[in-house]
Amino acid sequence: MHVSELQTPALVVDPAALEHNLATMSAALPGARLRPHVKAHKTTALAARQAALGHHGFTCATIREVEGMAAAGLGEDLMLANEVVDARRLGKVVAGGARVTVAVDSPATVEAAAAGGVREVIIDVNVGLPRCGCDPVESGRLADRARAAGMTVRGVMGYEGHLMMEQPREDRSAKTEASMATLLQAHRHVGGELVSGGGTGTYDVNKWVTEIQAGSYVLMDSAYGALGLPFRQALFVEATVISVSSSGWAVADCGLKALGMDHGNPSIDGADVWYCSDEHVTFSSSPLPAVGHRVRVIPAHIDPTIAYHERMHVLNPAGDQVAETWEVDLRGW
Amino acid sequence: MHVSELQTPALVVDPAALEHNLATMSAALPGARLRPHVKAHKTTALAARQAALGHHGFTCATIREVEGMAAAGLGEDLMLANEVVDARRLGKVVAGGARVTVAVDSPATVEAAAAGGVREVIIDVNVGLPRCGCDPVESGRLADRARAAGMTVRGVMGYEGHLMMEQPREDRSAKTEASMATLLQAHRHVGGELVSGGGTGTYDVNKWVTEIQAGSYVLMDSAYGALGLPFRQALFVEATVISVSSSGWAVADCGLKALGMDHGNPSIDGADVWYCSDEHVTFSSSPLPAVGHRVRVIPAHIDPTIAYHERMHVLNPAGDQVAETWEVDLRGW
Repeated sequence: MHVSELQTPALVVDPAALEHNLATMSAALPGARLRPHVKAHKTTALAARQAALGHHGFTCATIREVEGMAAAGLGEDLMLANEVVDARRLGKVVAGGARVTVAVDSPATVEAAAAGGVREVIIDVNVGLPRCGCDPVESGRLADRARAAGMTVRGVMGYEGHLMMEQPREDRSAKTEASMATLLQAHRHVGGELVSGGGTGTYDVNKWVTEIQAGSYVLMDSAYGALGLPFRQALFVEATVISVSSSGWAVADCGLKALGMDHGNPSIDGADVWYCSDEHVTFSSSPLPAVGHRVRVIPAHIDPTIAYHERMHVLNPAGDQVAETWEVDLRGW
Repeated sequence: MHVSELQTPALVVDPAALEHNLATMSAALPGARLRPHVKAHKTTALAARQAALGHHGFTCATIREVEGMAAAGLGEDLMLANEVVDARRLGKVVAGGARVTVAVDSPATVEAAAAGGVREVIIDVNVGLPRCGCDPVESGRLADRARAAGMTVRGVMGYEGHLMMEQPREDRSAKTEASMATLLQAHRHVGGELVSGGGTGTYDVNKWVTEIQAGSYVLMDSAYGALGLPFRQALFVEATVISVSSSGWAVADCGLKALGMDHGNPSIDGADVWYCSDEHVTFSSSPLPAVGHRVRVIPAHIDPTIAYHERMHVLNPAGDQVAETWEVDLRGW
């Protein structure tokens, strides 16, 4: 199919940037050093590409992601890096033959894991982001509680999400070291083979974990693009210009229902984005495009952008044909 | 099903608020005076409730919405209040027996409508919002062009979206009058029985159109809630508290993939929302809830919130049971 035949808005993937990102990350963090986070792309076909490069453990954010990865045959070592108070659906995935480890940070979530039929947990430790994770001084007691309930404790995890966009890199590195000192302190109480953490923003400065939970690197967005990382923008929203005003603006059919907006407006190369509404992006450029022209919109935040779309289209190297279409099959909860 | 058995995050609808909103709007704008916009709720089961109250014409924002409404038997008079450069899918809906009117604002979109097999158009006029719509001085020529192509021109539409949140009401009213003067000027050039415009924010101050295209009124959000309109919050995201920190915050499983974020953070009654991440909302309250408790999150913007969800659950009057589950069946494009 020629790219011009795609119904818009449509997610399109630049194959050269995708391959570059996959190869760059796998060289930096080979094999088990990377536990790719599927929340960023929610696409088992793309996770299969990551597995083919030697990354057999995956990070998930929702029960649906765990179920979908297991159903796609990618359940060798799935970590739900998030707390749940009802683990019965996870227990079914375990009973189906997949390996599932769930994060716990309280007695209630330890009990939920055991009651739901999950056999392995990881102690989630707060490392500075005001979100989930126990106080490190409680980590040992939680691990004891999990072991007493018959479960294996694989180690500790802690997400330094508040440091992902810290600039310059030296500050990001120093603050990550301090944050990870907390995680290592907890690890001494907890034991286990895993110290899991990190993300795309700290993949090369977090030297203290055994594995990095990065997801955004593979497709990227304009927020991470501002960090100067060696990953390229691989995902765009293809949009059609539907209206052009003689007063100096154009409108394309990629609105805020096709984009995550929490990081602000998307960008368009060579254009000035004014604002988005439900199904429109209004922008100016010189010259203005004509009605019917295509534009490529760069999302500010990739994760909530992809979650709106049913599929993504990988282009051929020339960029004019759709080479492959992948279902975004891990959406919802 | 007891509401506590719902997998979270989940859209829940307060039936008393829903009925109040439906009845209040139908009393203010009976029958054809209201052309409900389905983009807000994307749910044919809810559109059927609006049709049962006498509103047989509907407004749509996407081709998928038009197709889905026709497939659900609600295709008596569908207006796509948006431009398209490929109308072939709309032509198929017309061939299937539904009535479809599409907005046009340029020669290219007039030609696309004719080429696609659409028989009726409405001239979209810019009334001050920098988005779609022709200059009023061009409206007559566009109408002539559409008629020359064999299509019926039903009239004019213009959306005063830039005025929806204008406060106080008197200013909103005065500016709407000025904006609609532009639309009426175009109508004199175009003719036709329809002068279509407005939204939830101007439903009671826009006295110049023949029909109002309101959508948000039926479920509401915190942005429209700030206007003091007689509609009540009917939609919530039910979420489960998954983590509570001794440092003074709690985390529930309703993140920015379950919420439209373009109007900012959601709210929670009795709590102070700190921020959202992909699958979490972090908040403080006094006292803090316990792990496993439920909270109801009020979206700041309803339209992009609903677009993330597969279904919404209408509760019983007591609020403890799910009375009905509606598929959000108009998602995507």
